[in-house]
Amino acid sequence: MAFPSTAALAQRHARIRESLDTLSLDALIVTPSTNIRYLSNHAGTAGILVMTRDAVHLLVDFRYQEAVRALQESASACPQLRVWDVPGSYEEALIGCVADIGVTTLGFEAAHVTVARYEWWRATIAGRRLDITLRSTERIVEQARLIKDASEVGILREAAARLDQVVPIVLAAVRAGQTERSIAAVIEGAMREAGYERAAFDTIVASGPHSAMPHYRAGTRTLALGDLVVLDFGGVLDGYCCDLTRTVAIGPPSREARRVYEAVRDAQAAAVAAVRPGIDASAVDAAARNLLSDRGLGDAFGHGTGHGLGLDVHEEPRIGKLRTDMPPVTLAPGMVFTIEPGAYLPGFGGVRIEDDVLVTGTGCELLTNLPREHLIAL
Amino acid sequence: MAFPSTAALAQRHARIRESLDTLSLDALIVTPSTNIRYLSNHAGTAGILVMTRDAVHLLVDFRYQEAVRALQESASACPQLRVWDVPGSYEEALIGCVADIGVTTLGFEAAHVTVARYEWWRATIAGRRLDITLRSTERIVEQARLIKDASEVGILREAAARLDQVVPIVLAAVRAGQTERSIAAVIEGAMREAGYERAAFDTIVASGPHSAMPHYRAGTRTLALGDLVVLDFGGVLDGYCCDLTRTVAIGPPSREARRVYEAVRDAQAAAVAAVRPGIDASAVDAAARNLLSDRGLGDAFGHGTGHGLGLDVHEEPRIGKLRTDMPPVTLAPGMVFTIEPGAYLPGFGGVRIEDDVLVTGTGCELLTNLPREHLIAL
Repeated sequence: MAFPSTAALAQRHARIRESLDTLSLDALIVTPSTNIRYLSNHAGTAGILVMTRDAVHLLVDFRYQEAVRALQESASACPQLRVWDVPGSYEEALIGCVADIGVTTLGFEAAHVTVARYEWWRATIAGRRLDITLRSTERIVEQARLIKDASEVGILREAAARLDQVVPIVLAAVRAGQTERSIAAVIEGAMREAGYERAAFDTIVASGPHSAMPHYRAGTRTLALGDLVVLDFGGVLDGYCCDLTRTVAIGPPSREARRVYEAVRDAQAAAVAAVRPGIDASAVDAAARNLLSDRGLGDAFGHGTGHGLGLDVHEEPRIGKLRTDMPPVTLAPGMVFTIEPGAYLPGFGGVRIEDDVLVTGTGCELLTNLPREHLIAL
Repeated sequence: MAFPSTAALAQRHARIRESLDTLSLDALIVTPSTNIRYLSNHAGTAGILVMTRDAVHLLVDFRYQEAVRALQESASACPQLRVWDVPGSYEEALIGCVADIGVTTLGFEAAHVTVARYEWWRATIAGRRLDITLRSTERIVEQARLIKDASEVGILREAAARLDQVVPIVLAAVRAGQTERSIAAVIEGAMREAGYERAAFDTIVASGPHSAMPHYRAGTRTLALGDLVVLDFGGVLDGYCCDLTRTVAIGPPSREARRVYEAVRDAQAAAVAAVRPGIDASAVDAAARNLLSDRGLGDAFGHGTGHGLGLDVHEEPRIGKLRTDMPPVTLAPGMVFTIEPGAYLPGFGGVRIEDDVLVTGTGCELLTNLPREHLIAL
């Protein structure tokens, strides 16, 4: 597994510490596993990280001690790391840690800490008469993760490029008489062969009427002539996700299927063409949405146009309509996201086409760039 | 996919409504996907459910409308369901729904709602001058899920039983010269063949020194003579999880490997034998822990003895030491959990043995019951 270097981690830490300065915080509690990995290279599913001005405190239980020790002996060691053993409760260990290191103003990530957890922290700090004030913060680590650094871009490019090995195997397997689930097995086997450590999400093979359900997974249905089949899959390489969708017709598509397919293909191309730094992410969504509306398919496209990709398969930026409950996002070089418009007609079927893009200085680089033209199988 | 019947859902609703009565709540907001599925049979990854005294309000976006419509025409329809379309933001749709149906005292699940989400709800309710008071609740749905009903026990038994088809294929694949990742692929292929819809978690194949890391996954290491190999995997059948661990020696195990293996095997048997209704879950943990301590391996067993299984692969009850930040759990018939003590010696290797049990009226039923004796491969 390739991890970012110690120097790359140090740069990330510097950005987080700028936020600590701005917000007058002594420290930030970091709890989601991908944020912890981003800041420390610790890839476990449990752990708490506390970032201070001059150290990175990592609380891990017994299960991860050995892995962290090996990490710290590598070229990807986390700088200024101090490891805290968690013999029982993570919550107890956290309070013990922050009391011991003597922080007074302690930030936590409001989007990741539950009300129950926050209330336990608050009550325990009060009960022990510790001089610690908890302060809610928003998107400190997410803001840093939004712009991929060089090591991340390298891994994301490679993760997407390996789909070139997977897609031909998948297209060869999509045939009338196969079940959705058997094709999902082919996809996941091909991803493993290509070196992905795991699937980034549950593989979708949605055939015939199922293709009208954007988040159907894969079932026991047998593919038949005349079906549209939506194939949506991706793998994780060195922790980073790729995500691709192609739609295949089984046998010559009907006139209506061709029409829907071409509208989605053109909408996707329009959205890709719209990407450039400085514009609002919602403009990319509008490019796809307007084209589908012009073709009479506006109501058939009910989801957003894309989502960020990185350590999480759904992360910032969201590529969709402007919303009252989220800040707008201006595109900037180094952002990586999917572009995946679709059209879904209940009872008839659906089409979705998805690629992954990296925002560059002038437009975007397609990280996935496999054929999108009329895919027809037998 | 087999879903619980409408009648089974109605019984679950009755239990939740008892809690609404006790807490004087008009309604409860339910947000985790597995809690939503438990109460509605809606199996999507997005959605919000609002349970009132006389209805079940399900808020879903476009992607799931078709699936919910099909569900409601089946024998597993959710009783008293009212579906709300979510055209944009789920948070906006939720506020719109609770304002429209006119609830005054509204519970939410403190363990599942983040501080950021709660603060947005609170500010929006105040800003719109709605007569709604938010009240934090703990474990209302989890308490119901803790005791599996007949339909759940049936699925969990079947999910565990199908491992009988998987294990022989896996044991045949564990050989010197194979990589960890190739064995993980065999495991996941065999699980798919056995009919599981997906893996319940990232398959663990931890060989040689890696076996000393309890949460290692599967890497590029090649198995060699003398290795201990920890194999930890499970599948999801009709939404429900099973979870099994076996440890295999490659070639005749050393005296020390045998000693550790036998201690873990005996600790696991002691914990299984300890299970009965009416005792605290920590007593099951103590049975395994005491035996390992007696054999000089107390420090080598750093994690808990087990975890509940159901719609989540880690759910209540936790089978571990008593903790200050969690209520104790008294075992009762209908609980399903893993029993998986281990011993991990850094540099040398580790052993873990895991089975799934159902608490009965007098003790427990082993849902998985494959050989545990000295598994030796070449």
